[in-house]
Parts: sequence; C-alpha cells; structure tokens
Amino acid sequence: MLAIDKLVTANNQNKFICVGLDTDTEKIPSFLRSSTNPILNFNKYIIDAVCEYAAAFKINFAFYEKYGSEGMKILEDTINYIPENILIIADAKRGDIGNTSSMYAKSIFEYYSCDAVTLNPLMGFDSLKPFLEYENKLNFILTLTSNPGASDFEKLKLNDGTYFYQEVIKKVHEWNSNNNCGIVFGATKNEELRENINLIGSLPVLLPGVGTQAGDLKDVIRSFKSNSRKLFLINVSRGLIYLSSGNDFAVKAKEELLRLNSEIVELFASGD
Amino acid sequence: MLAIDKLVTANNQNKFICVGLDTDTEKIPSFLRSSTNPILNFNKYIIDAVCEYAAAFKINFAFYEKYGSEGMKILEDTINYIPENILIIADAKRGDIGNTSSMYAKSIFEYYSCDAVTLNPLMGFDSLKPFLEYENKLNFILTLTSNPGASDFEKLKLNDGTYFYQEVIKKVHEWNSNNNCGIVFGATKNEELRENINLIGSLPVLLPGVGTQAGDLKDVIRSFKSNSRKLFLINVSRGLIYLSSGNDFAVKAKEELLRLNSEIVELFASGD
Repeated sequence: MLAIDKLVTANNQNKFICVGLDTDTEKIPSFLRSSTNPILNFNKYIIDAVCEYAAAFKINFAFYEKYGSEGMKILEDTINYIPENILIIADAKRGDIGNTSSMYAKSIFEYYSCDAVTLNPLMGFDSLKPFLEYENKLNFILTLTSNPGASDFEKLKLNDGTYFYQEVIKKVHEWNSNNNCGIVFGATKNEELRENINLIGSLPVLLPGVGTQAGDLKDVIRSFKSNSRKLFLINVSRGLIYLSSGNDFAVKAKEELLRLNSEIVELFASGD
Repeated sequence: MLAIDKLVTANNQNKFICVGLDTDTEKIPSFLRSSTNPILNFNKYIIDAVCEYAAAFKINFAFYEKYGSEGMKILEDTINYIPENILIIADAKRGDIGNTSSMYAKSIFEYYSCDAVTLNPLMGFDSLKPFLEYENKLNFILTLTSNPGASDFEKLKLNDGTYFYQEVIKKVHEWNSNNNCGIVFGATKNEELRENINLIGSLPVLLPGVGTQAGDLKDVIRSFKSNSRKLFLINVSRGLIYLSSGNDFAVKAKEELLRLNSEIVELFASGD
C-alpha cells in the first residue's frame, strides 16, 4: 500500500493524530521497568490501545539509538508490531551527501520498512534524492520547526525579502515529481502556518509541537480549514504516552487520543 | 584525553588526514566477503595499517545503520578497536529538538564513546546545545558542504548581502563558549574556503571532499597557510580504503596515507 494512500485513508476517517513513540525508560511506568524488555512492552501496550484511532505512528530514532544495537532491535520489533495499514514515520531527520544518503534511505525504507521519514534539507537536493526516488514512500522535509532555535536560521530573511523556510517549501514543490513529498511545520508557529497555507498548497504536513511544546490545536485546524481540507498529521508524543504512571497509562493514552480526534472533528464542523 | 587535545597532538605531528570508514560490503575485497564478519574484518585491517599515520577516523553511521542492530554492533566493535589516542568522529549529522538531541548526544558521546560528531545546524542553537554541553568533546557543524546541493540553501544570499553558510560560521563562534566547536567545510569549495579563512578564525575545520569528490589538496593547504597554520582535518574515505580489491588493500591505504601526509608537509614547506 502506498504511503500516501495510508495517509489519505486515515484523514478520510477523521484520523489526524500521529502518535510519537519517544519512549524513554525514565518516563515509563515503574512497574514496567522491571520487565524483560520495558521499552518494547510499553510500546506494545500503547500500540494495542491506540492503533484503531491513530492516523500514524512516529518512531523517534534517537530514543532507540542511545541503547546501541539492542535499542535498534527494539526499534525493529516495535515497527514490526504496528499493524500493516497504519503509516509509520521514521523520525530520523536524515540528510547527507548522495552516497551516504542512499545508505540511510536503504536503512529506513528497506531494512526497517518504514512508510515515511523526516528529512533535513540543509545540504540540498542531491542529499535527499535517494529518499525521493522511493515512489511508494513519503518524505516529510523540515521547513519551520517547532523549537525556539527555528529563529536562528529557518527564519533568516533572504535578499528577495522572503524567509529561508519559505524557500525550502518552494523547493519541496520542485522536488515533488513523484508526489511523495510533504513538510514538517511546527504547530507552535501558528501565525506562519496561516500566512503560508497557500504556499504549502497540497503538500502533506506533519505538525509536531501540540501538547508538551504548547502548540494550539484550534489555530492549526483553522489554518487548514481556510484553504479547503488537506492532508495533515498532528504529532503528539509526550503529551499522550506519559499521561499516567500507573497501569492505566495505555487507557489514558487512548482516552486522550479519542478526545483529540473529537476536538478536531468539532473544530472542522464549527463556524469558527 | 580531551578531543581537542587529540586533534592538536595529531596536527603537531603533521597528521592531517582523517580516514573515513564508509565501509560497504559491495566495495570491499571479495575474499573478505566470505569471512564471518566482513565489515569488521575490513575495518580492523585498515585501522591496523593506518592508525600510526592517521590524524582521526570518521565513522559514517549510515553505512552501519542499514544493517540494523547487527550493523550497530559492528560500528561499536569498530570504535572499540581504534587506539585510545586517536580522535574518533561520528559522522552522523544529527540535529533535532532539545529533548531528542540530548538522546542523540548520549548515544554518540556516551554509548559509543566517540570523541567528536558532525552536526546539522538547521534547527538552531537549542537543537545542538545538548552536544555542546559535553566540554571534552568536539562538534563539527555543517557550514558549506562538498556536494552540488550546497548551492540550494547553504549559498542563499541573505538580506544583509552575506551567504547563509557565513551566518552559520558566525553563530558557531557564538556557540563556542566551551571551546568545543569546529566546522565542516567542503574541500571542493576552495574559493569560498580562501575567502572565509579569516571568518573561520581558530575554529577546527573538517574538510571532506578530497579524493572521489575531486577537491584539490593544494588549494586547501594554501588557504590554511595564508592565515597561519590552524587545526584541520582532511577526510578521505573511498579514495583511500578502496584502492585495491586484492589482499594488499590495507597496504595500499597506508601507502596513500603516507603519500598524502608527505604532500601536505611539502605544500606547507613550499613557497607557493
């Protein structure tokens, strides 16, 4: 199944939340820490509880790499546990010279069989080309990110008066000949999202920053409503998977996901 | 031993070449491919042959990640095999929101015990801060890279008339309060290296692109001579480790490294 079709199907079913599996042994319930494989067990409970209602899962590679080869095995087992019909995004923010980039693409799309990836465009077209050649995958390219440091470079003004991140969005359109590009745009940057919604056009958008990073869901939905409904995913990680330190953590995650889904449907339905 | 001291010691001994272990099973000698652990064996032969003459080793994470957890074990075993006194650079080009970046820093500096890392600055200061807090390590931050795509974004002109990559260099100076920052600057960009050598100042420079990517060693050395000798590393990967497909591959790598070392010493000594 094409990655883009998984996204379209999810959005058509009013599923817009991407569940971020930023699983940290220090944050999972203590009763799980003594189990044989705490991180994998935690992930399985979360996946079981939410997979019927989630639009996608985003696996943050950093949280697994820090445990070396054992961590990468947990990452692999987590990916294999996610039902086939749900979009899996490798949050890896890769980007390197072509020769190296093709190795990263093989890793993420072939070895780990992810449907999608987050990419860092700084090094330009040839650094992402090996990923873009996988026609059946989805590539979410960083534009304006949710963190404070976004103002250091992404918001630099160019000599034509536009911002750096806007130039990235323009280039992503140029690179989208296989219809497999999307962008990452911080949910904390609502004003910019609203102002650039036409420039973004039909590109699928992955929006991190709702929840712990305090992005406002209402403003996000308003921007998407303004320009006819399009393909997007709102990522929630810590604000969903760590709601309880008791053995109801997965139930709480599911409840929060259902609440977010309802809120989005209401926001779309409202005249606001 | 501080990472910066390893670099100073190497440069003082006229060692300027960083050996890139971009080890690819398809490119290593065929007689090794049938061994139990071809990549690790290849790396060990190369390390044994060149470690006395190399200034550093650069491990390209992509080439190991693509084999999943087994690949990461090979990466770990390779790192552990490199003598303690030689600088080990994790070529990973990481950069993410603070919470995630601190996981990548733990992975590279603690789990894998690398001395140095390559970082992508696009997401700004807070995305690199967790790395910069390791005072005893070295952080080589991408500025102007060696690949053609460098012109897509890194060479965009800002509204003050400077280039994007120059703004990155300025910011790296600001971020260098722990004296643990360096930059990556493509050896293929000789004109820009010459023009920016004063802006680079005392920042250690990692220069990929000599060899397969056709950067000119003579031009690189000329730039560094023009502004008094400073700390730098010229990375050579494919142009050194794949010189022979016979069982003399490690000898050939050593010979090429010695030739490069001599050439650099001569270039420094020449009046040119």
